[in-house]
Amino acid sequence: MISKMSNKRQLKIIKVGGKIVEDPRTLKQLLTDFSEIKGNKVLVHGGGRSATALAEQLGMETQMVNGRRITDRNMLQVVTMVYGGLVNKNIVTGLQALDVNALGLTGADLNYMRSEKRPVKDVDYGYVGDVKEVNGAMLADLIEKGITPVLAPLTHDKKGNLLNTNADTIAAEAAKALAKFFDVKLVFCFEKKGVLANENDDESVIDHINQASFGKLVAEGVISGGMIPKLENSFDALKAGVDEVVITRADLIKDENSGTKIKL
Amino acid sequence: MISKMSNKRQLKIIKVGGKIVEDPRTLKQLLTDFSEIKGNKVLVHGGGRSATALAEQLGMETQMVNGRRITDRNMLQVVTMVYGGLVNKNIVTGLQALDVNALGLTGADLNYMRSEKRPVKDVDYGYVGDVKEVNGAMLADLIEKGITPVLAPLTHDKKGNLLNTNADTIAAEAAKALAKFFDVKLVFCFEKKGVLANENDDESVIDHINQASFGKLVAEGVISGGMIPKLENSFDALKAGVDEVVITRADLIKDENSGTKIKL
Repeated sequence: MISKMSNKRQLKIIKVGGKIVEDPRTLKQLLTDFSEIKGNKVLVHGGGRSATALAEQLGMETQMVNGRRITDRNMLQVVTMVYGGLVNKNIVTGLQALDVNALGLTGADLNYMRSEKRPVKDVDYGYVGDVKEVNGAMLADLIEKGITPVLAPLTHDKKGNLLNTNADTIAAEAAKALAKFFDVKLVFCFEKKGVLANENDDESVIDHINQASFGKLVAEGVISGGMIPKLENSFDALKAGVDEVVITRADLIKDENSGTKIKL
Repeated sequence: MISKMSNKRQLKIIKVGGKIVEDPRTLKQLLTDFSEIKGNKVLVHGGGRSATALAEQLGMETQMVNGRRITDRNMLQVVTMVYGGLVNKNIVTGLQALDVNALGLTGADLNYMRSEKRPVKDVDYGYVGDVKEVNGAMLADLIEKGITPVLAPLTHDKKGNLLNTNADTIAAEAAKALAKFFDVKLVFCFEKKGVLANENDDESVIDHINQASFGKLVAEGVISGGMIPKLENSFDALKAGVDEVVITRADLIKDENSGTKIKL
């Protein structure tokens, strides 16, 4: 069997959720593990729990619809402070202490990710952005210089508004745009070691999933619920040129063989 | 008279205080004016009023000593959210809407400004940093690419701690480090049109001050109070290679002739 040949360099984009980056102990372990990953890398983070906690301290109620935060003007200020400030800068500062030359970015910084406010249909999500344009060349240029972008889940409309944008989406859109310049491996971290064959057995990680086996696993009821859109988004990223998507647990990101590997 | 000749390009570093950037109307005017300044530029901002307001909403008391904020661990979180998130990202987003390719930075981002926690003498200022090292070459490289850095008043110790740092200091230290690469004009904005010959006459702006006239003006009592350290810091910057320091009002930054021009 002939391995895939490519002149492009490797790039890992790792997305971690709020739970990991908001607890100082798990954050420290994550940053240490991340710092030990060789080569080009990007970190994408959430921060929803801290946003909800700050909103509560400020007497604001958090409303979620379909797992997404309703972002009115006050909530936009909260997520700007938490995602763009607190969480992003803590990660950048922690990585710099580990000699990773991190640079925190929202989509407005360097205009690297432009979005449009989501049209109001059944639900008015408020200041939430759907990604329209990613400046992959500019991100690639930073990465080639040895810089590690740390991406907060905020975009902008280039009309003066920041917009709240799901961190999984940020990771997938950055991965697609960077696939022109690198062989991109996109790693989504969640609370399990991978996609499980048996939801009651945390060790029953499915090694590989492709489109054919995905259809079969859904038909058999092995894959269901929130994992279906996660995998559909993964296939979208692969179709757009991303080399591989991995679903794994944050404490396993150093292990090349961990998690469920998704290919077309 | 022969003008000073230099092969270096021009750079303007403009520092604006919290009052201007925290009111949406004055912010909008400032960003419009700033966007119309031709050539290389850097914006440095404060944000103290918003930090104090957020702290109050969170039930925290703000303590100031000698005009500086006592920054305990909770207050550090507040200023990280406000300076690094809310204020910085609002400015960046506003500038991008005006086609200025802004990039928001704390000292941790790209490790561009390293500081050390201020030693405790009479006062324990907490997480407050004294600047030790500025990566001028890296900032210059960004500026040469047409990027406009927007600097928040936060530095880091490269050991994992962000540190609160006065915005005037950030501006002066960035100016000194960039003076190796550019002819730097450092503009401090405050509430008056410049240094006044008569404190009761807002139009009595002193055009030029040099070290000789400064001594005379202090001896005569024309310059007193908080203006003395401001001017001393200006002379320090000039001695370190900065070309000119200007003290003016934020709504006059487009006017090359506004304010008090300070030279050695």
